[in-house]
Amino acid sequence: MNTWITIPNNSDFTIHNLPYGVFIRDNKPTPGIAIGDSIIDLNAAAKCGLFKSLEFNSNVFESDVLNDFIACGKDAWSSLRSFITTELTSQGELFENKDKILVDRKSTQMCLPIQIGDYTDFYSSIEHATNLGKLFRPNSEPLLPNWRHIPVGYHGRASSIVISGTPIRRPQGQMKPPSEEKPIFGHSKRLDIELEMAYIIGSPTKLGESIAVEDAEDHIFGKVIFNDWSARDIQGWEYVPLGPFLGKNFASTISPWIVTMEALEPFRCESIKQDPPVLPYLQYDGNKNFDIQLEVGITPQEEEETVISRSNFKFMYWNMAQQLAHHTVNGCNVNVGDVMASGTISGRDANSYGSLIEISKGGKEPIQLKNNKERTFLEDGDSVTIRAWCQKGDIRIGFGECEGTIKS
Amino acid sequence: MNTWITIPNNSDFTIHNLPYGVFIRDNKPTPGIAIGDSIIDLNAAAKCGLFKSLEFNSNVFESDVLNDFIACGKDAWSSLRSFITTELTSQGELFENKDKILVDRKSTQMCLPIQIGDYTDFYSSIEHATNLGKLFRPNSEPLLPNWRHIPVGYHGRASSIVISGTPIRRPQGQMKPPSEEKPIFGHSKRLDIELEMAYIIGSPTKLGESIAVEDAEDHIFGKVIFNDWSARDIQGWEYVPLGPFLGKNFASTISPWIVTMEALEPFRCESIKQDPPVLPYLQYDGNKNFDIQLEVGITPQEEEETVISRSNFKFMYWNMAQQLAHHTVNGCNVNVGDVMASGTISGRDANSYGSLIEISKGGKEPIQLKNNKERTFLEDGDSVTIRAWCQKGDIRIGFGECEGTIKS
Repeated sequence: MNTWITIPNNSDFTIHNLPYGVFIRDNKPTPGIAIGDSIIDLNAAAKCGLFKSLEFNSNVFESDVLNDFIACGKDAWSSLRSFITTELTSQGELFENKDKILVDRKSTQMCLPIQIGDYTDFYSSIEHATNLGKLFRPNSEPLLPNWRHIPVGYHGRASSIVISGTPIRRPQGQMKPPSEEKPIFGHSKRLDIELEMAYIIGSPTKLGESIAVEDAEDHIFGKVIFNDWSARDIQGWEYVPLGPFLGKNFASTISPWIVTMEALEPFRCESIKQDPPVLPYLQYDGNKNFDIQLEVGITPQEEEETVISRSNFKFMYWNMAQQLAHHTVNGCNVNVGDVMASGTISGRDANSYGSLIEISKGGKEPIQLKNNKERTFLEDGDSVTIRAWCQKGDIRIGFGECEGTIKS
Repeated sequence: MNTWITIPNNSDFTIHNLPYGVFIRDNKPTPGIAIGDSIIDLNAAAKCGLFKSLEFNSNVFESDVLNDFIACGKDAWSSLRSFITTELTSQGELFENKDKILVDRKSTQMCLPIQIGDYTDFYSSIEHATNLGKLFRPNSEPLLPNWRHIPVGYHGRASSIVISGTPIRRPQGQMKPPSEEKPIFGHSKRLDIELEMAYIIGSPTKLGESIAVEDAEDHIFGKVIFNDWSARDIQGWEYVPLGPFLGKNFASTISPWIVTMEALEPFRCESIKQDPPVLPYLQYDGNKNFDIQLEVGITPQEEEETVISRSNFKFMYWNMAQQLAHHTVNGCNVNVGDVMASGTISGRDANSYGSLIEISKGGKEPIQLKNNKERTFLEDGDSVTIRAWCQKGDIRIGFGECEGTIKS
């Protein structure tokens, strides 16, 4: 598709993408769509009367977050996408008003695109669950008996989800290193990342309702990159029996642009075969996984970046539809803006693992970085950048970056 | 203190209490204060100009929830309490406008008093943790090594917290009874309660900040009764390694009236001695526990109630200040309206246990109810009511009731 906007080569934000985010304009958080190196200011576009033919109230773009727009429903998302595509490929009202509506993307600051209600983190990569099982429970079967029957998940902390670029403070806490007889208090020495993706709930349910697997994708607005920062020493001491808590809830970072399910449609792919077969409420037809390439780079302070892992969202054993069907099968309600993260996405080989604890085998084998640097866990000043993109023939869409720098 | 309002004998809502809630008036959720069998409509009082001398903007009472008022801060809570106490003990503006401002409490419906951000559930009763450990992990030490060092907690689901009186749907889910080789799907057969209390965050923190034990109570607005409904069969199959999920997140019930920390002040008491001594960030001075009597009644459909447990909030091993200091020691931020539940509050004897699984020894010993009924777990039509109150000499304050009825 030809557009009158210049799209740089290898841009994440092609006309096939059109992701939603919230950026700062005149000191106010403002909803927008990324295209090339620009942002379409949706509030300015609404004020120019562009959306008058669309069947939702365009004053939803006066909000600081996207929740009100998302709550307009799937038809609204689809009609706006279709309208913007037309406006970008023909010289209509958007072109005529471009000086008011288009903003230079690289000169803006992004903020959290949604008000997050609840946040759930799944644990859906079989390689990651196996690797972590070996490290946290070395004397037993790494994959627990329920893992192949349930898309295991737990509730995380929504308040500490931050936007890409927010510095990450090294947490303090209680831990019990093997060398110590009693627990000690201090800064985490085993600060780690988790390479994840997350989806944003677009269509809510009421308490008591369940979502069937075949309907689940209709409840998803889109996806972002997710870094579930983890303090392994705090986590190791606290997590039995009620799960991770302070080892995780000091911060999680999301990428600023929400890539919609419609944009991801061309990148559907098969999943890993599930064995043993799952219970009927988790069975599905068709391709419910997505071929999304992932990479993690570490940049020590004043150094250059080393890519330490290349993974893919398609490695997930449990897909999003199964996760959501499971989450709601007991009647648990979901709200617009809820975040559901995948869990760490690891592939088969060490160069596709999604966390440092896996790559460094529990901190025993340092990871080589450029210029003779090495890391087991993160040091102060380290910047971690996760990237995600899809490519199929000439069609490319990307998620941008999910970055955080460690400070003491 | 004498007041011109009639306070029935044994009322929970004496002049010493003045709890905050949200009730329906003219189809609109409206903030109010309970007194005797009445509610002071705070929005109507504000419209009558009663609060013009107080140093917060009284249009916070136009909101459907109390968050805006709570966010005005501790001085606002305290000045309003003091003002209302004066107005109730002298014939001033409230008395003059009582026809506009006072509402018959028993004719109204209550709703969730706050918009809940995040919800955390602690696990702070040593008797409960020991009892559950024996039942869930019969072949190992019941109290895990971290329990006496950490106020163990986990994140729960905020979306499914409902107000007292909301019917509770028996959840479906995946479980693996000991008799089965593979997991099965169905309605929970081991539906349980958890007798808890919860506190509401009143003063927020920023990400990266910690709350010291000695400052923690200043961040708490007040307390409610909390019933953490639990499906033990779903929980038992899912909870290792990441903690409870669908076994809990189908519903939790709170009582409608938030009893403030100021009202609870006369009921401070000593806590259980903590042994071994805790790390410095968890050490505290003075009395940080509260003598709050608790009771649980079960009423089978068309039957009379049997009180099955009498417990006390003072049995908690970890107090609220320690819980909040721990929760934020890693920099995790808290927001106004966050809910922090205690975990099940069990005493030493079976008649003070806070869950059916404990009282019935894992479902092996039925609990005798009136009229030759018995229960191990809940049946459809059962109504569970938790009550909480404090009494010291002539001073009594209460929390009202936290009720839910099981439907299929």
